[in-house]
Amino acid sequence: MNSVKVKSPATVANIVCGFDILGLCLDNPCDEFTLSLSDKVGVTIENIDEYNLPTDATKNVSGVALLKMLEQEKNIKGFHLISNKIIKPGSGIGSSAASAAGVMVAANYLLSKKYSKQQLVDFAIFGEEVASGAKHADNIAPAVFGGITLIRSNNPLDIISIDYPELFVTILHPQIEVKTADARNILPKEIPLKNAVTQWANVAGLVTGFMQHDYDLISRSLEDVVVEPYRSKLIPYFYEVKNACKNAGALGGGISGSGPSIFMLSRTAETATSVELAMKEVYSKTGIEFHTHISSINKTGVSVV
Amino acid sequence: MNSVKVKSPATVANIVCGFDILGLCLDNPCDEFTLSLSDKVGVTIENIDEYNLPTDATKNVSGVALLKMLEQEKNIKGFHLISNKIIKPGSGIGSSAASAAGVMVAANYLLSKKYSKQQLVDFAIFGEEVASGAKHADNIAPAVFGGITLIRSNNPLDIISIDYPELFVTILHPQIEVKTADARNILPKEIPLKNAVTQWANVAGLVTGFMQHDYDLISRSLEDVVVEPYRSKLIPYFYEVKNACKNAGALGGGISGSGPSIFMLSRTAETATSVELAMKEVYSKTGIEFHTHISSINKTGVSVV
Repeated sequence: MNSVKVKSPATVANIVCGFDILGLCLDNPCDEFTLSLSDKVGVTIENIDEYNLPTDATKNVSGVALLKMLEQEKNIKGFHLISNKIIKPGSGIGSSAASAAGVMVAANYLLSKKYSKQQLVDFAIFGEEVASGAKHADNIAPAVFGGITLIRSNNPLDIISIDYPELFVTILHPQIEVKTADARNILPKEIPLKNAVTQWANVAGLVTGFMQHDYDLISRSLEDVVVEPYRSKLIPYFYEVKNACKNAGALGGGISGSGPSIFMLSRTAETATSVELAMKEVYSKTGIEFHTHISSINKTGVSVV
Repeated sequence: MNSVKVKSPATVANIVCGFDILGLCLDNPCDEFTLSLSDKVGVTIENIDEYNLPTDATKNVSGVALLKMLEQEKNIKGFHLISNKIIKPGSGIGSSAASAAGVMVAANYLLSKKYSKQQLVDFAIFGEEVASGAKHADNIAPAVFGGITLIRSNNPLDIISIDYPELFVTILHPQIEVKTADARNILPKEIPLKNAVTQWANVAGLVTGFMQHDYDLISRSLEDVVVEPYRSKLIPYFYEVKNACKNAGALGGGISGSGPSIFMLSRTAETATSVELAMKEVYSKTGIEFHTHISSINKTGVSVV
């Protein structure tokens, strides 16, 4: 097998209270990557989408991850990547993670699956660093593993898959730019111990709610007293959207990753549709362009087509 | 039924990283309380132990909890309590919580179990406040519910029981005094966000480890970067004990509640015994008097004899 095509999914990092540690994998949208072994040394990239991402591999998220893997693979000269990005960069639903995770799973397929999923995340993190300036796995882990993942530790990397009940995710993507660096810089360096305790109580509640399939507990635990009060300032009408969605039956939700997308979890597809209507109703009055969509949770992560 | 006798167990609050939110129930030691309905208005207390605790109900942990329940029970004149405290006050294994929780379960038995466990915790918290000056349920909840409990929220009270694998607890009780108020005051009011993230990653890992019966994950998650660095200063030879216990095979452990007791979790009774020996070896050289003991986890909490 010298060539493989994969679909690499969008992801939601943080899941409200789980800042920097939790993430979930979406069924859609997905990027498409076709990766081939190449006789040319290094990584060549061909973009067939509209985003004009760098074709210089050292400046491209997928490219950097592939170069990192090549450092370990002395028997391989290079890769050729045909990149079809569907997930808009900067949307807050893990576009760069999809780029890094997708090509790592593809490369591993070409290498007879010699690497573990955790090793693929380790490589992919170097790609993520190009996009966000930080080595964070909170989008990459759910993209590679699927489902809901916990990153207990970044160094050494410790990723745990968490069981969960059926859930539907409604996403609102306001067409504004929120830079990940700005979203990081707006956060305080220190937080009150009292708020930290509230947060880890909710993190524990959320993880328990997922594993016990307890929708009420999930709903009660979807509260963020640490990050949301700051980052919500970067997203116009955040609280109006959140309130309207909860009134429409959402279990809860908040900022997806560092934004600007807002996500909401619902128990049924019907509720997720009502939540989407509620989002549209709020945002259609704002004059800000936006997209919405609904997804179930992707159990498998990046998949070979 | 006009009289009932209960055994009320010791508990370990915090469980290392879960400051103020997690707790577990021990099989031993247990206090013994005999509670009777009384024609005398209010609460009368008879102590049959060595601790000289107040017999004025308004200054007694059990008394205050019983008085709080009497406010709701207009058909009952009073209670008479025979209190046999076994759990030494100030040891850090939930002595006051056992006093409050025990009499609440006993009273509920006399009242045909009209209150839920969560309501009993609500009453008992008023008793705990007399001892520690704060309305904390992190020892009361595991005493009433048994097993391992999460307090997701104090207001409104939200207690969740968490599944766990077989575990053995080894306790070292140095015979020194650590006041709960001092143990609280030594903590910083603000903590670095970075440390808070590390802590809630470990909390999520610990809860997941318990529920997935994953001993390795439990062990990796038993780390406290927020509270232990401060409170350990109040407990002589804390790190020597901890290191010796981990070398003896303990999964991990730390300060029980606000100390001075140190607890360690082990996978088997044999390891718990090796851990106890390790504790004794370290502490026998310090000149500080101490006790050690081993307990399994109590699944049921306060029990009617």
